[in-house]
Amino acid sequence: MTSASLDVVGIGNAIVDVIAHAEDAFLVRESLVKGTMTLIDAGRAEALYRMMGPAIEASGGSAGNTMAGIASLGGCGAYIGKVRDDFLGQVFRHDITAIGVRFDTPAATSGPGTARCLILVTPDGQRTMSTYLGASAELGPGDIDPKIIGAARITYLEGYLFDPPHAQEAFRTAAAVAHAAGRRVALSLSDPFCVARHRAAFRDLVDGHVDILFANEAEICSLYQVNDFDAALQEVRRSCEIAVLTRSARGSVVVGGDEVHVIDAHPIETLVDTTGAGDLYAAGFLFGLSRGLDLASCGRLGSLAAAEIISHVGARPLVPLATLAEREDAHRRAR
Amino acid sequence: MTSASLDVVGIGNAIVDVIAHAEDAFLVRESLVKGTMTLIDAGRAEALYRMMGPAIEASGGSAGNTMAGIASLGGCGAYIGKVRDDFLGQVFRHDITAIGVRFDTPAATSGPGTARCLILVTPDGQRTMSTYLGASAELGPGDIDPKIIGAARITYLEGYLFDPPHAQEAFRTAAAVAHAAGRRVALSLSDPFCVARHRAAFRDLVDGHVDILFANEAEICSLYQVNDFDAALQEVRRSCEIAVLTRSARGSVVVGGDEVHVIDAHPIETLVDTTGAGDLYAAGFLFGLSRGLDLASCGRLGSLAAAEIISHVGARPLVPLATLAEREDAHRRAR
Repeated sequence: MTSASLDVVGIGNAIVDVIAHAEDAFLVRESLVKGTMTLIDAGRAEALYRMMGPAIEASGGSAGNTMAGIASLGGCGAYIGKVRDDFLGQVFRHDITAIGVRFDTPAATSGPGTARCLILVTPDGQRTMSTYLGASAELGPGDIDPKIIGAARITYLEGYLFDPPHAQEAFRTAAAVAHAAGRRVALSLSDPFCVARHRAAFRDLVDGHVDILFANEAEICSLYQVNDFDAALQEVRRSCEIAVLTRSARGSVVVGGDEVHVIDAHPIETLVDTTGAGDLYAAGFLFGLSRGLDLASCGRLGSLAAAEIISHVGARPLVPLATLAEREDAHRRAR
Repeated sequence: MTSASLDVVGIGNAIVDVIAHAEDAFLVRESLVKGTMTLIDAGRAEALYRMMGPAIEASGGSAGNTMAGIASLGGCGAYIGKVRDDFLGQVFRHDITAIGVRFDTPAATSGPGTARCLILVTPDGQRTMSTYLGASAELGPGDIDPKIIGAARITYLEGYLFDPPHAQEAFRTAAAVAHAAGRRVALSLSDPFCVARHRAAFRDLVDGHVDILFANEAEICSLYQVNDFDAALQEVRRSCEIAVLTRSARGSVVVGGDEVHVIDAHPIETLVDTTGAGDLYAAGFLFGLSRGLDLASCGRLGSLAAAEIISHVGARPLVPLATLAEREDAHRRAR
């Protein structure tokens, strides 16, 4: 195994977010389930956009957000995902490379436009997402660069990638290349409905090919079809080297072999928008793990990054997370 | 004079903002003057964008922001400005109509793309703008709909409109139509460099055709080529029915005939991004004026709207300003 030049490579659906505020009644009227992600086609995307309030556009995508978080913490990362050579594709490429993430996947020159996610933020700060996959669904095994996978300590896959047709294959290719190079593979389950859509494939992957699993309570319960968090916890312990289970305001539980750590949520002043909370938790955790921190410290770094992201609109950091982490570290030492 | 069905119609450069954080050193390196607006061409816009950090895209334009503010306060408004029939043009149209502002100006079907403004926000919250006017420069007198102008109590013009070649003419047309209909004309000076570029034309307009003038300290001093705020104040009193002079953290001064009101800045928790502060002050003031409030109350409503906008990234309100205004009103009555 050669020495790793990258901390993490993230693979995901390359998406630009279109974020607007909405009342709960709007979700009900449009049959949207709060806190979840629904796949929509181009026609529905246009119709829903017409009905939405004024919005802002910002680069997103679950793994894209995670990689932006890792770069913001001072980590070296790369991203693999598919955009179209259109305006939103340029925006996505600009934003991820401007923060220092390597992004070499060529843009599609034909076919559907760059993916967009219509995000409705309700007054309680919850986000409800409707995703038009567009060009991101074109990602296939040919886009997995073995040199980049081999150079990264951790290959991180977002579960949303199970939706597009060729991406599952890309997924398995990436995991195989990573393990052949002696690297670790991390997976986020992304969404309970996404898990339900692809449960058997996820179970197979988690059992045989994933070293580090990220899931929230609804996702891990959906994976094992249990109603009880503790039951799911006992299941996942047997499958993965490390399982990271996030529980919103109740913090997170990190399990690695016999070690179990219960990590409090990092305090925040005001909950504004939960978009990206899980993505940024993963960023903090993976950065810590890549830099050799113990599991509890990784969890605390995840909580810190998640707290920053939910304190403002949008799923990418507004301030350098490295500065927050240093400040937190100094504070901790002074206690 | 028939009864007015609109509070305000705003005329301006229809622009989408591209907002990124930047260090002061970046401004110095790129010869940008903090707090001002520079016009750039398409090539420079691309080059500067490449060098900028990760950004968010949000509808902007000075008068566009003002109209969004008026709608957020519960006012009825319309907007006149030129976009191209491209992605950013659709974004601009969506955002301004979604908040309830009427926007009938047809998009250009050829020529340069929709205008964009690259905004760099430094750690002190100041914004520095580089604007590529694109399609917005195509606005001409033919776009001024006399029915809309005649229906609005106030026609509001942004000073930035003096830069594109045909817009000055559109400007004069709009003012003439408004006055013929017995309505009032308001103008914002927008930027001290913009004033310097077109000083004679601005002086002529302010002396003869403007009823309500908005300016900050640098702009009003530039207009009269004086170094002293009080000297500028005495000059402007002689020219306009109402002059509204904003002074950042030092609040504002409202002058109407013999009345002079000194209004404190509305308190804020944290200054995040000053983009849109002047635009939203104008929104609060014009909404109040249209609804028959006294000048001091108009000024306080302007301060309140400006305070909301500088507390977050972006130049359009994140919460309904009408709610904030009601809360403030209740608070004031309770004292």
